[in-house]
Amino acid sequence: MALLIIGSDRAQEFHKTALAKSPGRDVRIWPDVGEAGDIKHALAWHPDPGVLKTFPNLETIVSVGAGGDHLFKDPDLPSVPIIRYIDPDLTGRMVEYVTLQTLYHTRRMSEYRAQQAQSRWQYLPEPAAHEVRVGIMGLGVLGTACARALLSLGYQVRGWTRSPRDVDDVTCYAGQTELDPFLAETDILVVLLPFTPDTKGLINRGLLSKLSTTGRHTRMPGPVLINAGRGGVQVGDDILASLDAGELYAASLDVFEVEPLPADSPFWAHERVVITPHNAAESTPDSIVAYFLDHIARMENGEAMQNVVDRDPGN
Amino acid sequence: MALLIIGSDRAQEFHKTALAKSPGRDVRIWPDVGEAGDIKHALAWHPDPGVLKTFPNLETIVSVGAGGDHLFKDPDLPSVPIIRYIDPDLTGRMVEYVTLQTLYHTRRMSEYRAQQAQSRWQYLPEPAAHEVRVGIMGLGVLGTACARALLSLGYQVRGWTRSPRDVDDVTCYAGQTELDPFLAETDILVVLLPFTPDTKGLINRGLLSKLSTTGRHTRMPGPVLINAGRGGVQVGDDILASLDAGELYAASLDVFEVEPLPADSPFWAHERVVITPHNAAESTPDSIVAYFLDHIARMENGEAMQNVVDRDPGN
Repeated sequence: MALLIIGSDRAQEFHKTALAKSPGRDVRIWPDVGEAGDIKHALAWHPDPGVLKTFPNLETIVSVGAGGDHLFKDPDLPSVPIIRYIDPDLTGRMVEYVTLQTLYHTRRMSEYRAQQAQSRWQYLPEPAAHEVRVGIMGLGVLGTACARALLSLGYQVRGWTRSPRDVDDVTCYAGQTELDPFLAETDILVVLLPFTPDTKGLINRGLLSKLSTTGRHTRMPGPVLINAGRGGVQVGDDILASLDAGELYAASLDVFEVEPLPADSPFWAHERVVITPHNAAESTPDSIVAYFLDHIARMENGEAMQNVVDRDPGN
Repeated sequence: MALLIIGSDRAQEFHKTALAKSPGRDVRIWPDVGEAGDIKHALAWHPDPGVLKTFPNLETIVSVGAGGDHLFKDPDLPSVPIIRYIDPDLTGRMVEYVTLQTLYHTRRMSEYRAQQAQSRWQYLPEPAAHEVRVGIMGLGVLGTACARALLSLGYQVRGWTRSPRDVDDVTCYAGQTELDPFLAETDILVVLLPFTPDTKGLINRGLLSKLSTTGRHTRMPGPVLINAGRGGVQVGDDILASLDAGELYAASLDVFEVEPLPADSPFWAHERVVITPHNAAESTPDSIVAYFLDHIARMENGEAMQNVVDRDPGN
């Protein structure tokens, strides 16, 4: 019985991690599969179409992502159960990213970094966390966890969702009619919205211009945008225009309409824009492989499969 | 009975704030003290040596800082109780600083900023918080609050103190004999020690070389130093040597042996050193004066003194 790792550009790292966690296991990396009949379980990410059907004894496929869309594009996908990857780490990593970027801007780190480049020792007034109002768009598992972390640091937290939510200690706004009041009380806008027809291009100049211009503490230089959701939700040119017009003080962007961000994008050189390569909540090889091996152990012990993908989207 | 404000370059601002908060109080600013025998309580910051002993009826000294080192350099310091300033804001601000810098380095932001300057979109492996061991030297009010914040983000937290402490969920080490075991299990060293004869120059190359070289997660590029305590506790040249030798991956320094940091210091240009101008936990005049007046009220009501500095570093 052998395990297969297929498709990911991190396959070598997955392989090494699997052998470190489970010495003696027969773990193979596509295309060096050896005897195809040995393969019983596959860890897969964007496998080439038609490859998975070549393993006659394949019993399950574990998807590296939470969704199965990268597998379903294969017209010859075997009809074995597909297990979605649920990452306990993912929420924690998003909380790290949002907390880091919120602190970075309220503590005026872009300016301190620029001063350091000039060998300049100069105090800048910075607001305390409790003087800053963070508004989170999207209060699902990730948004709610970010709200909790920011509250525990002392930030004032508001949230906006399409339909009404109730989160402890978070002032909640919902729907189109409450969007403007939400924005008017937000100094730092954190975007964790999914990409849907409703959210496409939502973060545009009109919306950004409604961010708080009053009630902000004098030590908070201006509104800040943090987008760690989906690039299609924002209009990049509008964000640049808002920054250039001084309507937006700074931004941290992990996602873009086109990724990788093209080398000629004006975002790269903006001194108060922090760019990260869509890794705000990247899953680690360690947790992906641990999840895969845990699934194998369940199979070997005759336990029930968990997190099986429903292949019929009509259900 | 009169109050005295002495030493700070913000003395005038303290005086004005005190009169606004407590109209009619007899508050004096050194050197315009009038009758020395009137002075019962002093709010002090780096007072000139020998001055405080000239007040025969002085009962307590409130330090503008969390430490008393700026007072102890006075060989004629009266033997009255010294009250350390504990600022509810100060603790929050120190937590912000330590959390920000810890996240900054575990999320490899120095390298992402350098990549951004090159318009480069490149994923870097980053450890999750739970894979990183933060070691805090000094578990007083500030250190304990930082430990709590880091624990809630998922970091593993250890602490080292001169005498044994017990802090929930923190592995505590104490005294000289447990320093090496503490360092051997520390990936990120947070220094919040007071400046005393015992701590002078403690953070030197020998100590830094003992930071964890084993057990560190492979995605954590190397040990990190964060000093938000006192500059005299570190040896700057040793930190630079450790960085250059690759024994230290990165550092965030808010304090230095000489401040402001001289313009020709090699620290400024180091690509993985973050410099801030001793503002990790800046206090506002408003909260400093409120604390001082609250202390006076306690004395007038015959209540117990709070936050008395331990003068014997052997304790």
